[in-house]
Amino acid sequence: MTLDLRRLDTQQSSFDREFADLLDWSNRENPHVVETAQNIIDSVRREGDGAVIKFTSEFDRWQVKDIDDLVITADAMREAWQRLPRIEREDLQCAASRIWAYHENHNVPIQPHRDEFDNQLEVRVSPLKRVGVYVPGGQAAYPSTVLMTVVPAKVAGVDEIIVTMPTPDRQVNDNVLAALYLVQPSRCYSIGGAQAIATLAYGTQSIPRVDKIVGPGGAFVAAAKKLVYGPVGIESLAGPSEILVIADGSTPVEWTAWDLMSQAEHDAHAQAILISPAKDYLDRVAQQIEINLEDFQRAEIARASFKDRGAMIQTRNLAEAFSLANRIAPEHLELAVEKPREHLDEIHHAGAIFLGPYSSEALGDYVAGPSHVLPTFGTARYASVLGVQDFLKRTSIIEITEQGAQPLGKVASRLAEAEGLHAHAEAANSRIKDYGDNH
Amino acid sequence: MTLDLRRLDTQQSSFDREFADLLDWSNRENPHVVETAQNIIDSVRREGDGAVIKFTSEFDRWQVKDIDDLVITADAMREAWQRLPRIEREDLQCAASRIWAYHENHNVPIQPHRDEFDNQLEVRVSPLKRVGVYVPGGQAAYPSTVLMTVVPAKVAGVDEIIVTMPTPDRQVNDNVLAALYLVQPSRCYSIGGAQAIATLAYGTQSIPRVDKIVGPGGAFVAAAKKLVYGPVGIESLAGPSEILVIADGSTPVEWTAWDLMSQAEHDAHAQAILISPAKDYLDRVAQQIEINLEDFQRAEIARASFKDRGAMIQTRNLAEAFSLANRIAPEHLELAVEKPREHLDEIHHAGAIFLGPYSSEALGDYVAGPSHVLPTFGTARYASVLGVQDFLKRTSIIEITEQGAQPLGKVASRLAEAEGLHAHAEAANSRIKDYGDNH
Repeated sequence: MTLDLRRLDTQQSSFDREFADLLDWSNRENPHVVETAQNIIDSVRREGDGAVIKFTSEFDRWQVKDIDDLVITADAMREAWQRLPRIEREDLQCAASRIWAYHENHNVPIQPHRDEFDNQLEVRVSPLKRVGVYVPGGQAAYPSTVLMTVVPAKVAGVDEIIVTMPTPDRQVNDNVLAALYLVQPSRCYSIGGAQAIATLAYGTQSIPRVDKIVGPGGAFVAAAKKLVYGPVGIESLAGPSEILVIADGSTPVEWTAWDLMSQAEHDAHAQAILISPAKDYLDRVAQQIEINLEDFQRAEIARASFKDRGAMIQTRNLAEAFSLANRIAPEHLELAVEKPREHLDEIHHAGAIFLGPYSSEALGDYVAGPSHVLPTFGTARYASVLGVQDFLKRTSIIEITEQGAQPLGKVASRLAEAEGLHAHAEAANSRIKDYGDNH
Repeated sequence: MTLDLRRLDTQQSSFDREFADLLDWSNRENPHVVETAQNIIDSVRREGDGAVIKFTSEFDRWQVKDIDDLVITADAMREAWQRLPRIEREDLQCAASRIWAYHENHNVPIQPHRDEFDNQLEVRVSPLKRVGVYVPGGQAAYPSTVLMTVVPAKVAGVDEIIVTMPTPDRQVNDNVLAALYLVQPSRCYSIGGAQAIATLAYGTQSIPRVDKIVGPGGAFVAAAKKLVYGPVGIESLAGPSEILVIADGSTPVEWTAWDLMSQAEHDAHAQAILISPAKDYLDRVAQQIEINLEDFQRAEIARASFKDRGAMIQTRNLAEAFSLANRIAPEHLELAVEKPREHLDEIHHAGAIFLGPYSSEALGDYVAGPSHVLPTFGTARYASVLGVQDFLKRTSIIEITEQGAQPLGKVASRLAEAEGLHAHAEAANSRIKDYGDNH
């Protein structure tokens, strides 16, 4: 079976059209998904627990009797932990402690600013109170996502963390439970999809609403997150996963082939792109992927992904490759080139950048330390990797002295009058000592 | 004319219902606004410049001939600056330089993390490339908002800043132009409402799309920002302005009265709430507001705001007042109490906190230094004051050494296999030295 994977060449006249087609966002908007998500949200908001029970029974294919059925207990987590082989427990611990160590010093305090009038102007950085974490599931179970979301929230100091995830056919994966045991969320529920997002956003009779919802999910979760944004915070609208490898040919062909396949195996909508000025390298990686796909368990998914969204792009040189990377703004970018650090300034838009041949995305997905929750669909133009900052908020603290209110009051009152806001002017004036006399 | 301003008392049995009513979000959602905003966005996305010209002509009531008519030129800004009285130029300069000084050290670098295998794991913090700033207008002109949005973007190091604002009847306020002259955005357009947000989000033939849109606006702007979020970043969904004053009676009655009025004068939907355990203080502030409203230019707006959304709440004690403040999560919170700093830890949710009698919100609105763009509608539960961070993004930089890939590869491949992701496991394994031999 031949690999179906489009080839683009920046020297072809059709390139711009084909490249635009590869990145087109509008193909990904589905009004049916948005409408369904809205209906689910409305039901949960109206009926609470009853709607959550109904939708979970329907979508996850098991008979939920009451809301307690949806609680994943601390006992279940501990028992799964104990059932796990020792090496698997150690792997989870290794990943969790590396993720913790990486994030630990990211809450950098901002120094208070004191002006010449002794006014004190501060940014208070404080953790969010109650956060909801969505852990995707269904097609596969993701203990790694439990670690990559809950650990940064814990490092930030969030008071209460509510984890929710789909458990189709009431199957809860032991590794997921063990990861939950390690990170100890405040509560955990077997609720998935738009009904989980609605529950976290508005609360029900049994489950409190949260302040912010984070974590990746499928199309319904992304649509629901956008719909509930406002009353509740969200960190991003995650889409299918993406990798872009820029290669100069110095990284072994087999390594690059597996890295591209590790994205394509996620789901048919995942995107794997290889860019290189070396036509020969592109050919050899394509051949290697074909070889690897023989006897590969998830070959059908990977082939669909390569066919639908994958590409190999030949460029004139590396500079052109970096420029295309900035137009793609990929979730994961591997710089499989010699002296990658020298090219870092040429990359403006990517969720995470992996430098050199040993920095396989797979290591970042599980154990390097930074979160694997990253901006997709070109949102790396403005969005950031999930981190401690997503669980903190900044509040201005403004303390004006009597001395400081004098000059500032005069400036503020004139600026307010210029805007036609007389009460603002009077509020500023009222703090000025001799104001009563001059008024 | 008697002041129409509801009085609540935490000791009354009706309190919880009345308080919930005061904070109800659902009253504020208007499907008509969302639908209209969506139609405008669709038109701009489809037709580009032509739609922008059409909507601006219609909504801002002047005949736009071509897109150049909508450009606010650097010359217009400079001329307005020169026309302004010297004292007004100095006031703008004073505000701008204080806002700059306050934000200057807020981009705190995050130190790279190097692990025991010499792997280097970094957070790269970099400015956004192109940002759109919406400056509201129409009912009033807001030079202060130009400073409070563009200055933090400049401090962050944003390459290109595009400012857009409505100019009804083609009137551009000189103070706004002068503020623009001071901060020097890259481009500026006379486009307002949902058509401005659509232009910034998708670009047109003449105007490039931006990476993120910031700035407050009315209901159509907020609806449009939510609709375009995804392809473009946004910082918040701003609603009408809010103030909550918690008073123990130590701040002069007149000062508090003007502070509440300075919120109520914004528009009929603005919210001004006073909470105090001292009934007598509430009565006196209400009387003072009545007196202030005589001969007050914007009395009609302020009366409507007080009637529709204002409240005075009597509590048993200050602790109860702080607890209500956390349920309100106000945009602006004045702690008009003795030793306000001692109570700071009791306040979890507010956009900006003003400490003590001299810290009038009006000073923060114009000249204290922190941005006056703040989370409204209870979103201070999760959202932050606009700041340098809104114009920065964080990218993970992951550099794994050959030595580091050995232990990490083994852990990652086992974790990947547990998730059923075989290509991830092979990608990790491929970096392990003796892998070929053992496989």
